[in-house]
This record gives sequence, C-alpha cells and structure tokens, in this order.
Amino acid sequence: MNYSFVENILGRLMIAYAGFMGIPFLVALIWQEGSILSFSLSIIVTLVVGVILVTHGQKEGRMGVREGFVIVAGAWLLTGLAGALPFAFSGAVPTFLDGLFESVSGLTTTGASVIDNVEILPKSILLWRSLTHWLGGMGIIVLFIVFLPNMTGAVHLFNAEVTGPTSERVLPRIRDNALKLWQIYLGFTVAQIFLLMLAGMNWFDAINHSFATMATGGFSTKNASIMYYDNLVIELIIIIFMIIAGVNFGLYFQAWRSGINKIFNDIEFQFYLLIIVVSTLLITLSLWWTMGTGGGNSLRQALFEVVSIMTTTGFTAADYDQWPSVSKIILLCLMFIGGCAGSTAGGMKVSRIILLFKLGWVELRRAIHPKAVINVRFAKRTVDPVIFNTVAVFFFLFLSIFAFATLLLAATGLEPFDAMSAVVATLGNIGPGFGVVGPTTTFSSINAFGESVLILCMLLGRLELFTLLVLIQPEFWRSRKGW
Amino acid sequence: MNYSFVENILGRLMIAYAGFMGIPFLVALIWQEGSILSFSLSIIVTLVVGVILVTHGQKEGRMGVREGFVIVAGAWLLTGLAGALPFAFSGAVPTFLDGLFESVSGLTTTGASVIDNVEILPKSILLWRSLTHWLGGMGIIVLFIVFLPNMTGAVHLFNAEVTGPTSERVLPRIRDNALKLWQIYLGFTVAQIFLLMLAGMNWFDAINHSFATMATGGFSTKNASIMYYDNLVIELIIIIFMIIAGVNFGLYFQAWRSGINKIFNDIEFQFYLLIIVVSTLLITLSLWWTMGTGGGNSLRQALFEVVSIMTTTGFTAADYDQWPSVSKIILLCLMFIGGCAGSTAGGMKVSRIILLFKLGWVELRRAIHPKAVINVRFAKRTVDPVIFNTVAVFFFLFLSIFAFATLLLAATGLEPFDAMSAVVATLGNIGPGFGVVGPTTTFSSINAFGESVLILCMLLGRLELFTLLVLIQPEFWRSRKGW
Repeated sequence: MNYSFVENILGRLMIAYAGFMGIPFLVALIWQEGSILSFSLSIIVTLVVGVILVTHGQKEGRMGVREGFVIVAGAWLLTGLAGALPFAFSGAVPTFLDGLFESVSGLTTTGASVIDNVEILPKSILLWRSLTHWLGGMGIIVLFIVFLPNMTGAVHLFNAEVTGPTSERVLPRIRDNALKLWQIYLGFTVAQIFLLMLAGMNWFDAINHSFATMATGGFSTKNASIMYYDNLVIELIIIIFMIIAGVNFGLYFQAWRSGINKIFNDIEFQFYLLIIVVSTLLITLSLWWTMGTGGGNSLRQALFEVVSIMTTTGFTAADYDQWPSVSKIILLCLMFIGGCAGSTAGGMKVSRIILLFKLGWVELRRAIHPKAVINVRFAKRTVDPVIFNTVAVFFFLFLSIFAFATLLLAATGLEPFDAMSAVVATLGNIGPGFGVVGPTTTFSSINAFGESVLILCMLLGRLELFTLLVLIQPEFWRSRKGW
Repeated sequence: MNYSFVENILGRLMIAYAGFMGIPFLVALIWQEGSILSFSLSIIVTLVVGVILVTHGQKEGRMGVREGFVIVAGAWLLTGLAGALPFAFSGAVPTFLDGLFESVSGLTTTGASVIDNVEILPKSILLWRSLTHWLGGMGIIVLFIVFLPNMTGAVHLFNAEVTGPTSERVLPRIRDNALKLWQIYLGFTVAQIFLLMLAGMNWFDAINHSFATMATGGFSTKNASIMYYDNLVIELIIIIFMIIAGVNFGLYFQAWRSGINKIFNDIEFQFYLLIIVVSTLLITLSLWWTMGTGGGNSLRQALFEVVSIMTTTGFTAADYDQWPSVSKIILLCLMFIGGCAGSTAGGMKVSRIILLFKLGWVELRRAIHPKAVINVRFAKRTVDPVIFNTVAVFFFLFLSIFAFATLLLAATGLEPFDAMSAVVATLGNIGPGFGVVGPTTTFSSINAFGESVLILCMLLGRLELFTLLVLIQPEFWRSRKGW
C-alpha cells in the first residue's frame, strides 16, 4: 500500500471540500447569519487537515486496486467528519455525533435527520445540508476525478464509488465519463430549479429541493417536507425529477449520442417503471378501499410516495405511516429494491433483482436438466458467471448486515418493526422509515449507540458494502511485493 | 412424463397412508370415541382413491428426474388432503380448509394450529395430529422407499424430499439409507417416550410429545404446550431431543459406524451448537436485565425457546411475545436459519448460511485479487461452484417468497410484523410466530385466503422450494422424446 500517495490525494480532496464550504459561507456572509463563524472555523480546520496531508504525502504514485479502496473509503470518512463541523459549531445539533449523523446522511443521500425543527436553522446551514446531498449524489470522488490530472488507476476510484453491477464501470476514458456524468447531473438540477420556481417556489427552496431531488437525498427546508406546499404541480415536478435521478446516468449520455430510444429499450429502466406503476396502482387501491380516500387523492399520494421511496429520496407528501399494512409492506419492499444501477439512488438496485430472478429461473431449469449448460442473457449480452456470484453475495451480505444492525437497534429498545425500518431506511439510503422514525418524525429519538450503527449503515449502503468490507480483511493490509 | 406410473406409485402411497390412519382408528375404537366414524370414513375415502390410482396406473415404469418431482409433490398434496379428512369429519375444525391447514401443518412439521382448545379433542384426533408430524418429519417418501422394491430412480424421490445441500443425497444404496434413517429416528423416538414417562408424563402425552419433538413439529396435547407441565426435567428432556432432531441424521449413522467423533467434528454441527449457545446467552442477559427475571429462570426460558425455535419445533415454555425487542429479533433470525441439513428441522439450514458466509469472504478476496482462482472448502472438500449457485438462489427465492407471502398476509389486515412472523413461522416450518400468531395464541384468526397462502408456505418450506417451483416451468410439462 502506498500510504504516502493516498495521503496526498485525500489531502487535495479535503482542500477542495473546504472550497465547497465556501458556498454556504458566502450565503452566511450575505445574510449576516450567526453561522459565519462556524463556517470560517470549519473551513480552516478542513484546510489545515488537507494541507498537512498534502505536504506529508507524496504527489506521484501508483494507484492500485487497494489504494483505490482506501482512498474512496477515506474520502467518505473525512468528508463525513468535515461536513459535520458546521452543524456542530453552529449549534444546529447538540453533539458532534449528531452533526456526523446529519453530514453522513447528507453525503450518502439518505436524508435521515436528527433535527426536529429545520425551519429555525440559518439559510447557510440549510444550504450546506442540501449541498452535501448534491456532492454525494453523483459521487464526491467522481467529481474529484474530473479535476485530477488523467492518471492511470482512476478507474479503481470510479469503480469503488459508482453503484450497481453495470458495464459502464469499465469504460476506458474515465475522466471524460466523470465529466459527462456531472454535466448531465448539473443540467437536470438547473432545469428542476427553474421549473420549481415557475411553479411558485422561492429560489432558495427551489435550489435546496432540487439538490435533494437529483441526489435522491430527501432533506427539505420545511419540517413537513413537500406536504408543506400542498401543490400538485410542485409534486409532479419533483416526481418527474426523482424518477430521472433514479435512472442509470450512463443511459443519458447514450441517449445524448444515439437517441432517446436507448433509455426506453433498457431492460432495467423498463422494470424500474413497471415496479413504480404496479406499486402505485396497488397502493392507490388499498388507500381507496380501506381508508376511504378519494380515487384521485389516493393516486396522487401513492404515486408520490412510491417514487420517493423507490428512488430512495425520502421526501414526504403523505403520512404513509398511517397507511394500511399492505401498503407499508409494499413500501418496505421498495426500500430494499431501490433505484437503477449507476443512478444516484440507493437500495440493492433493480438490475441486481432482475439478475437474481434470472439466476433463479436458471436453477429451476437446471433441476430438470442437470447437465445442461445454461447461459443467461441480460441487456443483450451473456452474463459472466462471476457477476452472478457477486450479485448473489451482495444480496446475502446486504440482508446479513440488515439483520445484524436490526439486532443492535432493537437492543437500544426500538420495537422490532421500527428497528427494521430504521436500518433499511439508512442502509438503503432512503431517509424516513416507519413508526418512531416515520415520515412525520426524525431520528432524534435514537440514542448515541443506535446513531453510530446507522451512520455505518448509511456508508455501507452508499458504497455498496464491498468498498468498506474489503478493508476488514487482514490480508488487505498486509504489504506485498509488487502491490 | 410417465403419468401412468406416477399414478400407480401415488396410489400405493395412499393405500399405505390409509394404513397409518388405522392407528388412531384403533385408539378411537379402544376408548369408544365419537371419532370412530370419522376415521372409518377417512380410511375408506383414502383407500378408494388409492385403489383407483393403482388400478388406473401402470406398475412398471421408468423413474426420471421429472417423475421424481411429480411423485413427491403429488404425495405431499394427497397426504395433506387425506390427512385433513379426520379433522373435518370429526368436527374438530369448522371447515375443510382448516382441516387441511392442520394436516399440512402436521405433515410439514410446522405445528401451527387453528384449533384454540385442543384439550377437548378426542385422544384419537390428538394422536393423528402427532402422527402426521412423525410421518412427515423423516419424510413420508423416504419411509415409502423402505417398503418399495429396489428401483432405479428412487434417488430422485429421495433427493426431492430430503433437506439441505448435503452429499448424503447421492449415496448409492438409497433403500438401505432410507431404512437406516428411519431406524435411528424410531430409536430416538422410543428413547424419548421412555424418558418422558420416567419424568412423570403419562404414556399418551409422552408418545404425542415425542412424535412432535423428533419431527421438530410442535403440536402439543395441551393448550399451554410445555408450559402446562412447568417441570424442569421434562423441559430438559425435550430440549435434548429437539437438539438431536435438528442434527443431520446422516451423522448418526456415520457415528454408528465410526464413532461419536464424526458428529462433533462436523462443521455444521459445531456452528449449530455455537448459534444455540450464543443466542441463549444473549437472550438470557436481555431477560435478566430488562425484565428482571432471575438469572436461572432467564437461562431456562431462553434455552428452551432458542432450541425450540432454531430447531423449528415451536413448543412453548415461555411467552416470548412479551420478551424485549432484541430477544424477538434474535428468535426471528433463528426462524430463518433453522436446523441442520438432513435433519427433520425446517428453515434455510445452518450449512447454507455457512456456505453463504464463505462465499461472501471469497468475494471480498476477489475484490482485491480480481484474477485469482479461489477454491472454497467445506467439510474438508472443495465445494463445486454449482452448489454455490444453488444455495445463493435458494436464499434469494426463500426471501422473495417470504416478501410476497407477507404482502398477501398484510392484505388480509395483519400488521406488518405479525404478517412477517406468520409467514416465516410457516415457511420455516416453525409453528408459532409473534403477535396475533404468537406462542400463546393460534392461527384461528387468519382468514381463509391467508390460510391458503400459509398452507402453500408450509409446503414450499418443507420441500425446500425447488421441488414445488420446478413444476411452474411450462417446459417441465412438455413431453420430450427420451424422457
């Protein structure tokens, strides 16, 4: 392991991150908010850490698989810690751990909050919350790659951060890709800001909600989230952009080059829409029949919440914790599934679920043709059996971590279903769950031990387990010739 | 598909099954119970169906993979239906569906009941409940193989019914194996009856509880289950025999030939004990600290319930539905894990979980050595990658069916956690769950639709999914030359 080189890279990242803190600092300056000092301090601390790392480290170096993992894991840890400083210094949260929870929740685009009343927060703090979403959404490392000189091995960084089992991961011109992804992301964000303002939202809220939407984050500037507006047009705009954010961004630049059909012919996209449509219809019926909500209103609430949960955004336009049991179970399943690979969404990803069902079908066929060699095709290509193993293991590890974390949360006193929902809401990077961590409450009732577990869940979920789990192998840290 | 041959085999099985009904019939006759007529009728109906199938079918035939699946699936369906007759005819349950629930719950060794008061039932009906456990425990088909003339292809029957991913499945002398398994099973059952009588239980209850223990079933002759006795010695005897029943029976005949070490050196057995010990300790601590139960009493309750749930027996010696959340989550995890492969227990089986963790570890190593070929060893042999696929798919399908069935149960109005627990309690062949289907209640509050779903879950769980799921492939039913 080339620690010296890793330090240098992480140091440069911290300096860049201090730069992003300059944006809320300017806001605080313009509005003369009390948080000016907090941001100044945070920027100084982050800069100092960055400069120490850069000068202590070595600029030139070889980036191997292992350096890639350590840099990405380190980057998320350091930006999480640095991002917590403004929350802690400004007193927006009572403890540093709460600040860390808020910061990691932002960066991982979870959107779970420990702040009960966000409407009393300074504008600069609100913007910082949304900005952490936006930076983490497309990937802090992916953004960083854009500004790094082209280096060999950047692909290892890219792979360790981008989500899902996609083939886009191995494209050759990694810096160009990173740039295009961020351009598309920025374009959609600007379009949404513009549309929300047209629909009557003020510019500050429009920016914050657009950051939170395109990152599938879910932090709002209002305690009641999107329920505050009670405006059909605003809801529709947010629904559309949540759906956009949950799609593989690789498809957008394929569509850019080869036409919109590239998107609609994609099997993962088709299933993604299908799941949204079917879930919306089932929940609409369940609300209509069992709760006596009118048909139109049922559809509106169902559609918003299905899209919000499936894309793992977590905005709230209806209190789904009051919904019938069957609707809750549907939402719970959507929390596990999540959005598409290569999107800003969390969860296990639609393509993994499709692959697992295909693998299941293959096994059923193998049961009656034990000696047949059966190839599986996905997106018009034969799937490498190694991918299957990786996907199957991901599914198992995701659920094992889910079970273990639920056990730990239950030990803090949460009821079984509440504990489960708190874990999946963070591990899947959704935000709100059910019960004590439901859509109309926050995570402020969770104790410090529980918060720590959930912070780890958010990071594991965002980095899709492996990037963090590989670090627990003793072998990973053993130095070897030639590595 | 050789339907004619399948009919003949199933017919002979029905005739044999009618013979087993003769046992409770005799009991009814001796005690002059009102159920004499019910059993007479049930025996006649079962015999008639059997004779029709035998005479309509063809005695000679080739047993292929597909015939094996159809015979096993058909056998469980038919014995389930026939077993429901005595319950329905005698009025022990209000509807035939309830009878079917009770019968399938018995045969699959689930032990979930829809009868609120079993203490008013005639002895003959109680014995029939326990007998269905005992016959289903080691496998109705495995027993049948003992009495069939040695035929080629019996291995397909054996494989479709015996649980877990074991190598015992492919042993050559299938009829000898079946016989030895049943001899060991019978031996343990007799030993337990004897010990329970020594501990003060009357002979009738001792027989019934021993049938239910060795089959990891859980039907009791008392409404309060084992709580009724409040006797430490009885609890200890039942704990020991539940543990015995949850072990791979293949190990017992290896131990018979080569010494007891064969059992203790088995990796699955070691993990099985380890999970029991760790879970018991954790629950003991949780009861001691949060509920103020004394240390000794906490240990006693924790040990009994951990063993009862992990072996998927489902006897009750404490109302674990009142336990702290963390204890409930531990029990819930045990419901999913279940006992050892090749035992009478349900659940996903310990060996599958071990294999999945090993597979997980391999994937983590592959992440840093992408080109390495990594072999996995289990029980001193290198594991065929095909086994991995099968196990990973089993895990995925088990949880998919769990999620889908939970959705259906929630649609009948059950709260999320209750619905989940009802499904895993049946899919894992445990019996009691939590809440409305908890340890001190029955499944009588579930409506007809819910019951049907749970009946299917019990069968899917007992036959480990594939034996039933292969039948849904259209290809399975297409006739082909050479099959």
